[in-house]
Amino acid sequence: MALVVAMVGGGQLARLTAPAALTIGVRLRALVESATSSAAQVLVDAHVGAPDSAADVARLLEGPPRADVLTFEHENVPPEVLDAVARSGVAVRPSPEALRHAQDKLVMRRRLAALGVPMPRWAPVTDEGDLATFLVEVGGTAVVKTARGGYDGKGVRVVTEAHQVTDWLASAAAGGPQLLVEEFVAFKRELAVMLARRPSGGIRCWPVVETLQVDGMCAEVVAPAPRLDPTVNEAAIDIAVRVAEELDVTGVMAVEMFEVDRDGQRGVVVNELAMRTHNSGHWTIDGAATSQFEQHLRAILDLPLGEPSARAPWTVMRNVLGGHVGGFSTALAQVLARDPGVRVHIYGKEPRRGRKLGHVCVYGEDLAELLVRARSAAAILEGHRLPADPRS
Amino acid sequence: MALVVAMVGGGQLARLTAPAALTIGVRLRALVESATSSAAQVLVDAHVGAPDSAADVARLLEGPPRADVLTFEHENVPPEVLDAVARSGVAVRPSPEALRHAQDKLVMRRRLAALGVPMPRWAPVTDEGDLATFLVEVGGTAVVKTARGGYDGKGVRVVTEAHQVTDWLASAAAGGPQLLVEEFVAFKRELAVMLARRPSGGIRCWPVVETLQVDGMCAEVVAPAPRLDPTVNEAAIDIAVRVAEELDVTGVMAVEMFEVDRDGQRGVVVNELAMRTHNSGHWTIDGAATSQFEQHLRAILDLPLGEPSARAPWTVMRNVLGGHVGGFSTALAQVLARDPGVRVHIYGKEPRRGRKLGHVCVYGEDLAELLVRARSAAAILEGHRLPADPRS
Repeated sequence: MALVVAMVGGGQLARLTAPAALTIGVRLRALVESATSSAAQVLVDAHVGAPDSAADVARLLEGPPRADVLTFEHENVPPEVLDAVARSGVAVRPSPEALRHAQDKLVMRRRLAALGVPMPRWAPVTDEGDLATFLVEVGGTAVVKTARGGYDGKGVRVVTEAHQVTDWLASAAAGGPQLLVEEFVAFKRELAVMLARRPSGGIRCWPVVETLQVDGMCAEVVAPAPRLDPTVNEAAIDIAVRVAEELDVTGVMAVEMFEVDRDGQRGVVVNELAMRTHNSGHWTIDGAATSQFEQHLRAILDLPLGEPSARAPWTVMRNVLGGHVGGFSTALAQVLARDPGVRVHIYGKEPRRGRKLGHVCVYGEDLAELLVRARSAAAILEGHRLPADPRS
Repeated sequence: MALVVAMVGGGQLARLTAPAALTIGVRLRALVESATSSAAQVLVDAHVGAPDSAADVARLLEGPPRADVLTFEHENVPPEVLDAVARSGVAVRPSPEALRHAQDKLVMRRRLAALGVPMPRWAPVTDEGDLATFLVEVGGTAVVKTARGGYDGKGVRVVTEAHQVTDWLASAAAGGPQLLVEEFVAFKRELAVMLARRPSGGIRCWPVVETLQVDGMCAEVVAPAPRLDPTVNEAAIDIAVRVAEELDVTGVMAVEMFEVDRDGQRGVVVNELAMRTHNSGHWTIDGAATSQFEQHLRAILDLPLGEPSARAPWTVMRNVLGGHVGGFSTALAQVLARDPGVRVHIYGKEPRRGRKLGHVCVYGEDLAELLVRARSAAAILEGHRLPADPRS
């Protein structure tokens, strides 16, 4: 009998897990927001429901056959729902205790501080006075975040004056998401470390990647991160492994970091944590020996983990965002004609401005060429007109 | 609106097409033999029906939405059903005219003979006298085949006496499959050439592979074929390309060949043709820049074809056959623990002796090591006990 994995969420992360599941003979069942969700289009076993409904999550697990493990493509399942599942005897991976650190940035910051992990200066914020003091301490600019519910740039505001978050403070006082403030880090670039950890303890780490964020959203990933100082590489991996072990994380985890230069020393500070497959790991589908999607399934099922090494010297992943065009059919043919080596991944989502509709991936030996190819392919799929291809 | 591909067949070839379809945003709908078929387990859009039922095939196309193209994972759709689909305005790819050459070995032999393609000596057989004469001409041993319906060693009999196919001759005389006889080729090894061709004409050919057949079934594939003489390589590709063009094949085609040494000259003779994805091409999922499954979809949708080159110096694919054990769960963990780089593909089929239940794939630089890894992994999944791993 096939193992059954129940996943909360029906977006592209669940969709991209489908090929990994069928390859290793795992049955994937997802809790989707609607019957036309990205993952619902490709999963035989998609249940429409709400992630904050204990009844919907319970039904997801019931089957038949009953799920062997519950996992997530997003963090929006309330702790009480998770606890109920854990009490029912179904494994929850990552565990509710671990997941809290990805659900609540205040919980995460407090825990990482206790572990001595390098981070931006930060503080909880409950009133304008706190924030004004913090702004003075960090030199005038800071980043206010809601502790819960943020993603893709939502729940994040760069501020220079305390009154710029008066609305959020009022909401927090009224029982809405709590707030924290972080120094605005003058980073050299952003890095991400992704790893997978099994309940029985094995950890496998993919090469550290460089990520380019635009408007708070991941736009591009280069694997491995170019010209990465070996000590920074080691520090980044050490932090991620230590966090995974200390927090008893199971499944895939992404640790987003800033690379910084402080007092002449290069290093990293931790920006965000996610305990699920992540946009920073999409390159692994075409670029690594084991994709993050298969590795996540293997990890949460406590199967031995796969080799995470890169298959080519360089891999570049670029997101395709909605905006300019309604459909892909002409653009897809154009991209495939220009570049027989490009890998195109389409999520089946209705195009809306700024929405992640897919990604492209290229790999090879010449990073400069790969960047041009990835950006050209994404631009065409996004509906931009490009200058004539010099190669054609 | 997503393009819709209707595929006749619900076995592992349809199942393995599912990831390729969802990746490029194509909706795949299959005509499956039962709701538990290999492909039915993983396709939202699986219709139970019979491939020789015009009504079932018509319903497969109807949707909604209506299919853009009809294609196949096996050859068992009668010409009259295909003609009806073609008349209804849905593209049939490969076309009924091309597909006849993969459906009927007599049609194939006659056409290839007309094209001057090198083949084993062959003849149609309608009575024991014909066969006895042929056996004398070729030195005593020959291979009798049913013109239709054979696969995986079925419909093939090696004979030394005409009376060994008395039953088949009687069946043929009574309206059953016609017969042909071919010389028993003393081949050096078996090769396969796989390619894809678009309706608008582009052709892409994967590297020529060596295939190892056991009991008439593909057991192992090495890509590229080791120590292949460049003139043999060129001859093999030339033959496949010419057949694809002359027969106006669309989609993926596999040409199985024998490598022979005749009068001191190395060369190839054509054994079989298939106009669909094929076991000889499973290595392309993990081992080539574009898999045969994505390439088939691109070809039949007349999209530009992808790069077919190998991603590693060597790739080895080994089939996993049913026989010794009932399930995979323990064996899977054992295989993944022994070899973090092995790719395991499970088809979700009930284990039966000799049935293809999955395949494994490894790639790298050292062919001897890869062969050991692939064979060990397949053996464990098949339930054999291996000696202790020297590396552990």
